Amino acid sequence: MVDAAVLGASGYAGGELLRLLAAHPNVRLSAAVSETYAGKPLSAGFPGLDRISEPSFTSMADSESLILNCGVVFLASGNGKAMHLAPRLLEAGCSVVDLSADFRFKNLDTYRNWYGQEHASKQINEEAVYGLPELFGDQLKNARIVGNPGCYPTAAILALAPLLKFQLADPTTIIVDAKSGVSGAGRSNFMLDFHYPEVNENVSAYKIAGTHRHTPEIEEVIASFCGLDEFLISFTPHLIPMSRGILATCYASLTSDITASELTLRYADFYSNAPFVSVWEDRLPSTKGTLGSNECHIGLAVDKRTRKVTIVSAIDNLMKGAAGQAVQNMNLMLGFEETSGLESGGLWP
Amino acid sequence: MVDAAVLGASGYAGGELLRLLAAHPNVRLSAAVSETYAGKPLSAGFPGLDRISEPSFTSMADSESLILNCGVVFLASGNGKAMHLAPRLLEAGCSVVDLSADFRFKNLDTYRNWYGQEHASKQINEEAVYGLPELFGDQLKNARIVGNPGCYPTAAILALAPLLKFQLADPTTIIVDAKSGVSGAGRSNFMLDFHYPEVNENVSAYKIAGTHRHTPEIEEVIASFCGLDEFLISFTPHLIPMSRGILATCYASLTSDITASELTLRYADFYSNAPFVSVWEDRLPSTKGTLGSNECHIGLAVDKRTRKVTIVSAIDNLMKGAAGQAVQNMNLMLGFEETSGLESGGLWP
Amino acid sequence: MVDAAVLGASGYAGGELLRLLAAHPNVRLSAAVSETYAGKPLSAGFPGLDRISEPSFTSMADSESLILNCGVVFLASGNGKAMHLAPRLLEAGCSVVDLSADFRFKNLDTYRNWYGQEHASKQINEEAVYGLPELFGDQLKNARIVGNPGCYPTAAILALAPLLKFQLADPTTIIVDAKSGVSGAGRSNFMLDFHYPEVNENVSAYKIAGTHRHTPEIEEVIASFCGLDEFLISFTPHLIPMSRGILATCYASLTSDITASELTLRYADFYSNAPFVSVWEDRLPSTKGTLGSNECHIGLAVDKRTRKVTIVSAIDNLMKGAAGQAVQNMNLMLGFEETSGLESGGLWP
Amino acid sequence: MVDAAVLGASGYAGGELLRLLAAHPNVRLSAAVSETYAGKPLSAGFPGLDRISEPSFTSMADSESLILNCGVVFLASGNGKAMHLAPRLLEAGCSVVDLSADFRFKNLDTYRNWYGQEHASKQINEEAVYGLPELFGDQLKNARIVGNPGCYPTAAILALAPLLKFQLADPTTIIVDAKSGVSGAGRSNFMLDFHYPEVNENVSAYKIAGTHRHTPEIEEVIASFCGLDEFLISFTPHLIPMSRGILATCYASLTSDITASELTLRYADFYSNAPFVSVWEDRLPSTKGTLGSNECHIGLAVDKRTRKVTIVSAIDNLMKGAAGQAVQNMNLMLGFEETSGLESGGLWP
Repeated sequence: MVDAAVLGASGYAGGELLRLLAAHPNVRLSAAVSETYAGKPLSAGFPGLDRISEPSFTSMADSESLILNCGVVFLASGNGKAMHLAPRLLEAGCSVVDLSADFRFKNLDTYRNWYGQEHASKQINEEAVYGLPELFGDQLKNARIVGNPGCYPTAAILALAPLLKFQLADPTTIIVDAKSGVSGAGRSNFMLDFHYPEVNENVSAYKIAGTHRHTPEIEEVIASFCGLDEFLISFTPHLIPMSRGILATCYASLTSDITASELTLRYADFYSNAPFVSVWEDRLPSTKGTLGSNECHIGLAVDKRTRKVTIVSAIDNLMKGAAGQAVQNMNLMLGFEETSGLESGGLWP
Repeated sequence: MVDAAVLGASGYAGGELLRLLAAHPNVRLSAAVSETYAGKPLSAGFPGLDRISEPSFTSMADSESLILNCGVVFLASGNGKAMHLAPRLLEAGCSVVDLSADFRFKNLDTYRNWYGQEHASKQINEEAVYGLPELFGDQLKNARIVGNPGCYPTAAILALAPLLKFQLADPTTIIVDAKSGVSGAGRSNFMLDFHYPEVNENVSAYKIAGTHRHTPEIEEVIASFCGLDEFLISFTPHLIPMSRGILATCYASLTSDITASELTLRYADFYSNAPFVSVWEDRLPSTKGTLGSNECHIGLAVDKRTRKVTIVSAIDNLMKGAAGQAVQNMNLMLGFEETSGLESGGLWP
Repeated sequence: MVDAAVLGASGYAGGELLRLLAAHPNVRLSAAVSETYAGKPLSAGFPGLDRISEPSFTSMADSESLILNCGVVFLASGNGKAMHLAPRLLEAGCSVVDLSADFRFKNLDTYRNWYGQEHASKQINEEAVYGLPELFGDQLKNARIVGNPGCYPTAAILALAPLLKFQLADPTTIIVDAKSGVSGAGRSNFMLDFHYPEVNENVSAYKIAGTHRHTPEIEEVIASFCGLDEFLISFTPHLIPMSRGILATCYASLTSDITASELTLRYADFYSNAPFVSVWEDRLPSTKGTLGSNECHIGLAVDKRTRKVTIVSAIDNLMKGAAGQAVQNMNLMLGFEETSGLESGGLWP
Repeated sequence: MVDAAVLGASGYAGGELLRLLAAHPNVRLSAAVSETYAGKPLSAGFPGLDRISEPSFTSMADSESLILNCGVVFLASGNGKAMHLAPRLLEAGCSVVDLSADFRFKNLDTYRNWYGQEHASKQINEEAVYGLPELFGDQLKNARIVGNPGCYPTAAILALAPLLKFQLADPTTIIVDAKSGVSGAGRSNFMLDFHYPEVNENVSAYKIAGTHRHTPEIEEVIASFCGLDEFLISFTPHLIPMSRGILATCYASLTSDITASELTLRYADFYSNAPFVSVWEDRLPSTKGTLGSNECHIGLAVDKRTRKVTIVSAIDNLMKGAAGQAVQNMNLMLGFEETSGLESGGLWP
C-alpha cells in the first residue's frame, strides 16, 4: 500500500481523486489538502464521500510532513503552483502527478505565452512526461513526474493521433469542435458565466479561433507524437448545459479513399493495448456513455462526397479528462495494473 | 384582418404558430387543426395558451370549409403531406406557408432521394419560394406558396451566405457543426432517443458525414444563391440537453487576409435591411439570447495562423427556425410589416 | 403614453420589466438604470432585447432627472434601497412599484426582524398596498406605491386564499412545499450554491422550518386578508434544476367533507374576475405551462381517507412572481386595462 | 463466488444491477436477460459497461437453465411477473430479490386493489421479507425471497420510521412531499410525459392525494413496523427535471417539545448500525450527495412556533431506491458483508 496525498482536494478533480484513491486496492489515501475545508470531514466538501471517515481535510501547513512522506502526490491546485511544489516533492522521493498545465509543455516559450509566467522548474519540466498513457505509456513507467493532460486535449488527441500518425489526413485541415460540461470550469470559479440560469438551456462557443489555452497543448503533443514540424488546428470549445462530459467532433480531409471500416480497423489496432479506449464501428459515442468511468469512446464516419472524415470522441472530463487519467498514470508510474482502481463501469443514466 | 389556419397545430412549431398568430395585429386565428386534441381548448395541448378561448382545436374533417376560407394556411403536419394539400388550398385562394420539406427543393431528384417519395405537386413546387426572407425577400413578396426552411439550414445559411456570396472563402472547405435542442425532434416523436433520462446530461452527434436531410437543403440553397455549380458541406448535427435553440459553428478557409473586423462589416452590410439578423463584433452569440424571439445572432473570429474563419450563429429553432420565420414569410406574402407580430424581445434566462 | 423607468435593470426581474415595458401599448420605456451596464445597449445585458435601440442602460447619476419625470418607476434593486428612494419619487409625482420587500409588511417589527434594519419610510409604508391584484385590486387602483409580492408568496397565497377565506380548512394545518427555479436567487448572486454543476441534477431544500423570509410575508397577508388573528405556516422552499418557475404544493386539513369538484368551483368563483388565474379541475399545473406568461395555474385534489386537500399552484417566478405582476399592478394604478402588455401566451416547451 | 442472474436487465435498475454485480467481490455475473438486446454485448444497452466482455445479453429462452443454476436471481422485469417466476426459482434453490411490487405487501387485498390482479403466489408471499435492511435486517438474513422496496417508500420510510416508532409525532399528520428524477419512470416507458422537451425546465405533481401506488406501500410498512392499527399519509410525488435522485420532504406535528438536536440524536441512534444511512444535524441533504452510491442522507429541523418537524431524506432512486438496495439485500441473504460491492463513494458533481 502506497500513501497518497491530494492537494487541491476540494475542487471537482480533487473530489474525484479522493473517491478513486479511497477505493484503490494499492493505495492508502493519507492526506486531502484544502484550505477551504481544513479540519472538516470529506463529506463537508463531497457529501457522496460520507462513508470515508479518514482522513479529514487538512491545511497545507498542518500536513506538510505527511505529504512529504507519501509515495505519490497529486497536485490539483491550479496552474502556476505545481512548478513551485514539485522540486521539494521529488526531492522527498514522492512520485508526482500534476493536474495543472505546469508540466505539459516541452516548449516553455509556449507555456510562458499562454500562462503568463516564466516556468520556475525548467529542469524538472524536462524529465516530466505528458500523461497520456495511450501515447506515452512506456515513458510513463519510468516517470517521477507527470503532466496530466488537459480535458479537451485528452479527447482531441485520442481522436486524432492515429489519423495523423498514419498520415491518413492532411494535417492543415484539422478542426476540433468540442463540447464540454460546466465542471470543466472548476468548482471555485463561480461567476456569472457559470451561474445556473445563464448556462441552463443555453449553448455557446467561447475562446474561438485559436485563443483557448488547450490549442497549443493539442498542437505540441500531436506534432511531437506524429513527427510534424508544424501543426496548427482550429479549435472551438463550447459550453453545454450539463455537469460532466466532453464530446470532441473532429474533422479532417483524408489523403486517400479509405473507408470508414478500414479507418475504424486502423484505430482499433492502434488502441488494441489501451484498456480504456473503445473504437466503435456501428454507433457513435455519447458523453453519458462515459459517465463516471475512465473510458474514451470513439466513433467515426467518412463522407465520400467530400473525402472528409468526422471523428467523434467522448470522455468524462473529470475521469479520463482529469482524475481517472491521473490514477491511470500513477498506476503506470508505480507499477500497478494499469486499470487498478478504475475498473468500475459507467453509470447510466 | 386575415383569417389564418394552422394544420398540425399540436406539435411544437404548431403551438408557437398559435401563440404568435393569436397575438398578431393583422391576423385572426381561425382554425387550429389537430386530430389529437380535436374538440379541446388550446390549453389542453399548450397550457400557456390558457387565455385564448377561441378557437378550440378541431379535426380536419370538421374544419375543411373553414380552412379553405382562410387567407393564409400554415402547414405544420410533417413531410409528405403538404404536397397533397397545397393544390386545393391554392385553388381556394389561400396563401400557403409549408413548414415541412415538401416545397424546399428545386431539384426534385434530391427530394425523392432524401424523403423517399416522388413529389406530388411538381408544378406548384416550381412556383414555391424558399422562405428565407434575408436571401429571398423580393420573391417572397409575390409568393402564393412558401417552403419554410429547416431549422438547421436557417442557422447555417444565414451564417454562410455572405461569406460565400462575396467569395471570401473556399467553398470546398465548409464545415457546419450544429447543436440543437431536443424540440427539433418534434413533439410526437417520443422514443428512447428523446426519453428524458437518455438526453439529459448527455451530448451526442447523429447522422454525421452528410447523412442528415438538412445537408442537401443547405447545399442547394447556398449553391443557388451564391451561383456555385457544386457545393458540398460537411454537416454534423448534435443533440444537446436543452429544449430549444440551435447553435451552428461554421468553419471555412479564407481566400484572403481579411480581418474579423472587416468580415463583420461585410456581414453587417449584407444584413443591413434584415430586421431579425444581428452581427456582433465584440461577443459571441448564445442560443439563450434568441429564446422566444425571431432573431438570428451571428459572431465570428479569424485565426490568422490557419487563415480560417469560425462563424457562429444562434437561433431559436421553433421561432426563426420554424414558426417565427413562417410568420415573417406570411408578413411578406400578405404585405404586412415584416416584423408584425414578431416584435417581442427574447426572454432571459 | 406614460414614461417608465426601471432601477436595477440588469437583474432577472429587471430584464423582464424591460422586455414587457418595451412592448407595452401604454408605456414608453425611458430609463433602464444599471451601474453594471451603464452606457451600453440593453442587449449587452440581455441579448434577447437586441432589437430595442432606445434607451441604453444608464447610471443612476446620469438619469436622475429623467427618472423623476417618469410617470411610473419600477424599483428592482434589492431589499433596503426602495425605502430610501420612495419619498423623493412620490414627491416628484411618480407612481412606484417596488419589487423588493421594503413595502410588503404592515407590521414593521416583522420587517426589522427579518430584513435586519429599521424601516426608513414608515409613513409611506402605511399607504403602500400589497400588490396582489387578485386580493387587493380595489386598493391598487388608488395606490401611489405598491409593494410587489415575493415570488413564493404569490404562488402560496393564490393557492391558499380562497380556502382560508371561506374557512374550508383548519388554518393550523397549512403546509407549503415550494419548488423554485434558480433565477429566484437573482442574477448577481453568483456563489457556489448556484454554480451550474452544483445545482444541475440536484434537488435540495433550504431555509426550512420557518426560516425563509417569505414565511412571515405569506403569514401576514393571509392573516390580514382572511381575518385571522394568528396564522402560522410550515413553509419549505426547494431549489430545482431549472431556470424559471415556482410550483407550490400546499396541504391542509379540511373542515368539512367538501369534494374536489365543489372546492374547484369555489376557487373558480373566487377568481372569476382574475384574468391571470386559472383553476383546473381535470388536470394539474406545471411550471412550464406558465413560462413567459403572467398566469397562475391552480389544480387541487382531496384525499377522502385523510380529509386533506392538496392544492398545487404554478407561476413563472419572473412574471407573475415579479415583473409581470409589477406591470399588472402598474396597469391598475394607472387605469390601464389590467391585462395590457401581458396578453402574450406562454411558450411551450 | 455465487452466480447471479438479472432478469429485465435492459432497464435502468437492471443496468445498475449489472454494473454493481460485475464489480462485486463475492459474485459472478452469469446472466443478463433482456429480450430487447439478446445476443448483444452489455455495452449495446449500457455504453458505460463497455469493458465487461462477459456475459452478453441473452433471451429468457436461451438462458433458462443458466438462471436456474444461479445462487441468486434479481427480478427487474416489472410488476406482475415475479409472482409467476418465483416458485420455480425458489424450487431450484435460487435466492430471489424481486424489484417489482409483487412481494412487498402482506395484505394481498391491497396488492389486488392497486396492481389490478390477484396475487399468484400467496404462500411464497407470506415468507417474503420486505427488503429494507435498516428495519428488517434480521429477517433478511434468513430470507429466501425479498420484495425490494419502491423508490419513494425507501426515502419516505427511512425518514419517518424513527419518528413514528418512538411516538414522537402524531401519525395522523404525516405529509410526504417527494421529488423524483425521471429515471423513476423506467426506461421503456417512453411517452409524451417523459419526452425531453416536456420534462426539461418543468416541475409538476402527479397522482396526488393518495392515488400513487407507493402510498399503500409506505402505509403498510410503517404501520407494521411501528405497531399502528391504521396509518394514512398524504403523499405527493413530483417529477423533477433530472435523471436520478429522490428527495422526500416529510412533515409531522410533534407530540412534545423535542428540539432538532435531540431528534437528530434519536435518529442517529436508530441508524447507528445502518452503514448506508447518515443523519446530519448541521446541513440538509441533496440528491446529488447520493449520486451513484447506496446512501440515504437525512436532515431535519423543528419549527417551534408550529411544533412541526420537517424531515428531508435523499437517495439515488436507482441505488438505495432500487439496484443498490437489492445488492444490500442479497449481501444479507447470502451472508456477505452488508456493504460488499457497495463501497464506492458518490460522484460529485
